[in-house]
Amino acid sequence: MIKITFIGYGNVAQQLLQAFLHNPAIKIQQIFVRDTAKAKVLDATIELISDWSQLTPADIFIIAVSDDAITEVSANIQLKNQLVVHTSGSVALDQISNHNRRGVFYPLQTFTKGKEIDFAAIPICIESEFSADLEILQKISKIISDKTFIINSQQRKALHVAAVFVNNFVNYLYQIGSEICQENQVPFSILEALIAETASKIKTLSPLESQTGPAKRKDHQTIDSHIDFLNADSTKQSIYKLLTQSIQENGKEL
Amino acid sequence: MIKITFIGYGNVAQQLLQAFLHNPAIKIQQIFVRDTAKAKVLDATIELISDWSQLTPADIFIIAVSDDAITEVSANIQLKNQLVVHTSGSVALDQISNHNRRGVFYPLQTFTKGKEIDFAAIPICIESEFSADLEILQKISKIISDKTFIINSQQRKALHVAAVFVNNFVNYLYQIGSEICQENQVPFSILEALIAETASKIKTLSPLESQTGPAKRKDHQTIDSHIDFLNADSTKQSIYKLLTQSIQENGKEL
Repeated sequence: MIKITFIGYGNVAQQLLQAFLHNPAIKIQQIFVRDTAKAKVLDATIELISDWSQLTPADIFIIAVSDDAITEVSANIQLKNQLVVHTSGSVALDQISNHNRRGVFYPLQTFTKGKEIDFAAIPICIESEFSADLEILQKISKIISDKTFIINSQQRKALHVAAVFVNNFVNYLYQIGSEICQENQVPFSILEALIAETASKIKTLSPLESQTGPAKRKDHQTIDSHIDFLNADSTKQSIYKLLTQSIQENGKEL
Repeated sequence: MIKITFIGYGNVAQQLLQAFLHNPAIKIQQIFVRDTAKAKVLDATIELISDWSQLTPADIFIIAVSDDAITEVSANIQLKNQLVVHTSGSVALDQISNHNRRGVFYPLQTFTKGKEIDFAAIPICIESEFSADLEILQKISKIISDKTFIINSQQRKALHVAAVFVNNFVNYLYQIGSEICQENQVPFSILEALIAETASKIKTLSPLESQTGPAKRKDHQTIDSHIDFLNADSTKQSIYKLLTQSIQENGKEL
């Protein structure tokens, strides 16, 4: 039985708890929250605490709080020789207070409130200070996910930057597409199949091979007419210009 | 029996031909190609021609050539009172020579050589000069696709610009993500689940509701560390800055 205690109970912690909850190899020992009255936990047998002195030893402490609170929160754990991990893509392992054994347990996924996640397909990136701890992290990762990767802090940072491009920025381009449709009384749902195909394509072709469109084929007539179309919206126009130029320059290097 | 003749035989024409080929309601009458010796057609009974004077009347002529050749190619059709359509997202109906009845048959999808397309899920945007022709276009559209939309030239242009954002530009962001992974010895496949989830999310949530990440939550510490991480690549850094700034300004308007 691996005893897990959560520090913090936001989106990530809730989704992880849900995934671990009914597994016989896992015991959720405690959840540390700021205000025990406000937290809604699915299982009444889990002990909710809000006083650092109430923490009892566990096999893993999972800190799931905002990035800039990780250092401070980890320093508040008054126990010694515990495995303390955070769940962040962008915070280095050494940001965790060094009075315990440190590690990272980073599920690479976008967590949206209210939308349940199927962890099986989500890669978990793990890292630890000591190799024995890596085994514990591997064990709990394999319980919830089919994909465990051992990734160091520098690689995790690269991965996080890449994830911002393929998730946050891609979603923002969806939003731009949706606004253009709305402004012209065209249902955004027409673009659904295209969006799905674009995402699915890269499983079999590299993005470089998949690239199509006016920028790629240097179709200046179409590019100019699109830039003209976006005249009333300088933000969209700047994004169009920068990405088009960048795709064209990219082509040159090949 | 609806008789279809293709003018041009690139990616789009080949995929459309494939979709129409074995339908009993359709007869592929002729395919006009520049060089009949070079064209490989799946069905030997289809007549290949490369001389404009050999064109015989049909119910629809589908011009599937590059955008800037549409006007010239349509003027070469020496027959009269024929329905002539193009397949382009960005060319207005009136760019087709006016000595025939004009229309548009635009399958909104990304066509990649060698990757077969399932037309059933692909929206077809149709437009015609005369309402009787709209019926013919609806008929052939419904044979291959579950989704037919009547869209005018201005709306089609908006849709095409939106498609550039959600397909061409999104794919380019995938490429940036893939390059960042490669440079840091991280397998790009780690990001596959995230990419799939990002695309699938917008079927149930609007892109605005789906937005997460450091730009959205104005996490300046992470943003600065990412910009710093991209220091060696000014193109990626400019794109990161512009999209981050734009997401943040977008948040302000709400």
